[in-house]
Amino acid sequence: MNFHSMTADQLRDTQADLRKRYDALCDAGLSLNLTRGKPAPDQLDLSEGLLALPGVGNHTSPDGTDCRNYGGVAGLPDLRAIFGELLGTGPDRIVAQNNASLQIMHDLTVFALLRGTPDSERPWSQHDGPIKFLCPVPGYDRHFAITEQYGIEMINVPMNPDGPDAAACAELVAADPSIKGMWVVPTYSNPTGYSVSEDVARGLVALPAAAPDFRIYWDNAYAVHTLLDEAPTPLPILDLAAEAGNRNRVYVFGSTSKITFAGGGVAFFGSSKENLDWYTGHANIATIGPDKLNQLRHLQFFGDADGVRAQMARHRALIAPKFELVLQILEDRLAESKIAHWTDPEGGYFISLDVIDGTAARTVALAKQAGIALTAAGATFPYKNDPDDRNIRLAPTFPPIDELATAMDGVATCALLAATEKLLDRF
Amino acid sequence: MNFHSMTADQLRDTQADLRKRYDALCDAGLSLNLTRGKPAPDQLDLSEGLLALPGVGNHTSPDGTDCRNYGGVAGLPDLRAIFGELLGTGPDRIVAQNNASLQIMHDLTVFALLRGTPDSERPWSQHDGPIKFLCPVPGYDRHFAITEQYGIEMINVPMNPDGPDAAACAELVAADPSIKGMWVVPTYSNPTGYSVSEDVARGLVALPAAAPDFRIYWDNAYAVHTLLDEAPTPLPILDLAAEAGNRNRVYVFGSTSKITFAGGGVAFFGSSKENLDWYTGHANIATIGPDKLNQLRHLQFFGDADGVRAQMARHRALIAPKFELVLQILEDRLAESKIAHWTDPEGGYFISLDVIDGTAARTVALAKQAGIALTAAGATFPYKNDPDDRNIRLAPTFPPIDELATAMDGVATCALLAATEKLLDRF
Repeated sequence: MNFHSMTADQLRDTQADLRKRYDALCDAGLSLNLTRGKPAPDQLDLSEGLLALPGVGNHTSPDGTDCRNYGGVAGLPDLRAIFGELLGTGPDRIVAQNNASLQIMHDLTVFALLRGTPDSERPWSQHDGPIKFLCPVPGYDRHFAITEQYGIEMINVPMNPDGPDAAACAELVAADPSIKGMWVVPTYSNPTGYSVSEDVARGLVALPAAAPDFRIYWDNAYAVHTLLDEAPTPLPILDLAAEAGNRNRVYVFGSTSKITFAGGGVAFFGSSKENLDWYTGHANIATIGPDKLNQLRHLQFFGDADGVRAQMARHRALIAPKFELVLQILEDRLAESKIAHWTDPEGGYFISLDVIDGTAARTVALAKQAGIALTAAGATFPYKNDPDDRNIRLAPTFPPIDELATAMDGVATCALLAATEKLLDRF
Repeated sequence: MNFHSMTADQLRDTQADLRKRYDALCDAGLSLNLTRGKPAPDQLDLSEGLLALPGVGNHTSPDGTDCRNYGGVAGLPDLRAIFGELLGTGPDRIVAQNNASLQIMHDLTVFALLRGTPDSERPWSQHDGPIKFLCPVPGYDRHFAITEQYGIEMINVPMNPDGPDAAACAELVAADPSIKGMWVVPTYSNPTGYSVSEDVARGLVALPAAAPDFRIYWDNAYAVHTLLDEAPTPLPILDLAAEAGNRNRVYVFGSTSKITFAGGGVAFFGSSKENLDWYTGHANIATIGPDKLNQLRHLQFFGDADGVRAQMARHRALIAPKFELVLQILEDRLAESKIAHWTDPEGGYFISLDVIDGTAARTVALAKQAGIALTAAGATFPYKNDPDDRNIRLAPTFPPIDELATAMDGVATCALLAATEKLLDRF
């Protein structure tokens, strides 16, 4: 029954039952991990063919480049065309780099701090007082780590089912020229699975920013990672920004980390021509060029955008059952009690679980004690601080499905137990 | 005969002959390139086997890591051990990263600017007034580009046959706490081919730097790139620095760019444990880890340090004749006139040619007009400014040997012609 309607005695009885169940869980000596959004080995096996590519004698890209030698800071044109289609930038407003889109986000931030963007009056690091970024929450911890690392103040804004609250963002950026940027995961967001609607996207690119060098980091990490028959058509976000008169506002990111190999993929960066020239000019100071052989390998492996889509259908076949299992366990174990709600994503890598306010950290601690590692409570918020102590990020992909079932059932027990503790405080 | 002893008439006659020879050169419609230190295609062919590695089913490193997935910011231990031996750091004070050691040098500089090193009182970017680096000249243009990019003032110091002038460096760093770093290529330096002796190395690690966070960027790019039977034993530079009481002073760099593939190799960074922890802590904000599959590929390809040495012997067989040819042409065409001197390197990628003061830019311009691209005059100096307009960097490796002969003979003609122009000014 609904825990919120229980009397103190009923809660105490329920807690006693849950405590027994929890003790049994602890006795089981589990060592399970639901922390990170990593592909499972069977997903990585889908790209095993890459390990023998490009093959002896194959080192020339279709445009005639010897991929073994130096040069070509923008990456191979044919691979850029494939991801220009999948990320909605088109073939000419995208570059291919090394294995981490996060590195590009980091470098863009560093270049802006030390040198300023093409629209900056001066480097961000020379701003009077700290600069700030808007952070839709819950969000991606590694985004927040970059801004935190460089002392950029982070301001929480709500992430709604159709995207960040554009009205709240508009009010903030109009009033404060120190707000220089914003993190967004537009498709199957980490951790909610929410996607930005076209309406919200139009609102974001048109935000009345007081800072002329305000930037939206549009991290389309899950653009093709759908659990449906087909991935959504990517929003032509660079065109929308240009239409709104802010053609340099948006940085688009993507990578093959969760398409091929998480450690050995190719990352992409799309933006206006002016921004790309600025970025490659800076990047070319730091490197003579990206690993074009890995790009050639990927180009051969995919062939075209449909090759990527076919690969994602194979991923879906492996991970959809894991998402279904987690959602089923959440429903079976938590629905009736009304102590939690969760997202039902159509793609991406995560399910976002909200428990009773003030019980996320306790739930994670109980799970840890039982040998189940969860993403730390608070990790989905700037400064690792969930003001409501409510959100838990569940990552279903990596564990084998039997371990996933055991772990999720354990998590449910921990959330319920923590809820009884919290609710009993009222009496 | 010696141009310096010529009368005006003799010089005019000589110039007329050279002018005819130069006009013929221009008429030949050449398009030759001696600009960059790139491996030639036959050198790249030596590593062609890498293109089919690690091979289907081979994705696990000897330490049990699934190299396809995320993680492991320090890189594969077995590959680090090989380059720890070759770079003289030992296996525990080195990390393996992506394809560009230049990127690591850049990132270390950026981290210091924005956050400070472990020994910094505050971030370099918050220093009162500009910070400075010592730059042995002639040196590597891409080093100087990094410091120039971030507004770090560069101070020329002479690069002698046994290394940078340590006494000159000592005087500078003792007097000026804004001098935070120094570029050095210790083995077969770019472009002179000079190597740092142990005495000079001991002097550098013991420099009485006023800045507690003074750093030596010890870019050992050519550690194993010898033209002799055996590469020199690398100086244990980290140990020397520790003995001198400056264990955090030295950053060691290396890469396989000119061992395997210039665009798709593995880069290495060696330093004290404290510096490595600091670097990997920062790097881990920017990336979840380097491309471990490319590291595994290289580990399989080399096997051990002797595998690298054997590979370098094969390179030597291909490039030694090119170096010999260039030196022969320089001797044949320029020795008698006494208008130039040049280095005779025992390894590395370059020959440094000094022409009569004030004629380097003219020589390069004449060559360009004749279809022979040389590294821009001045490129080997900070701010692209060779105060004597004297130095030209020759890069013999990339062109086919017949083109190299034609190009070098043309360069000699241009240098001689420019010399006659300059010497006639005296009359």
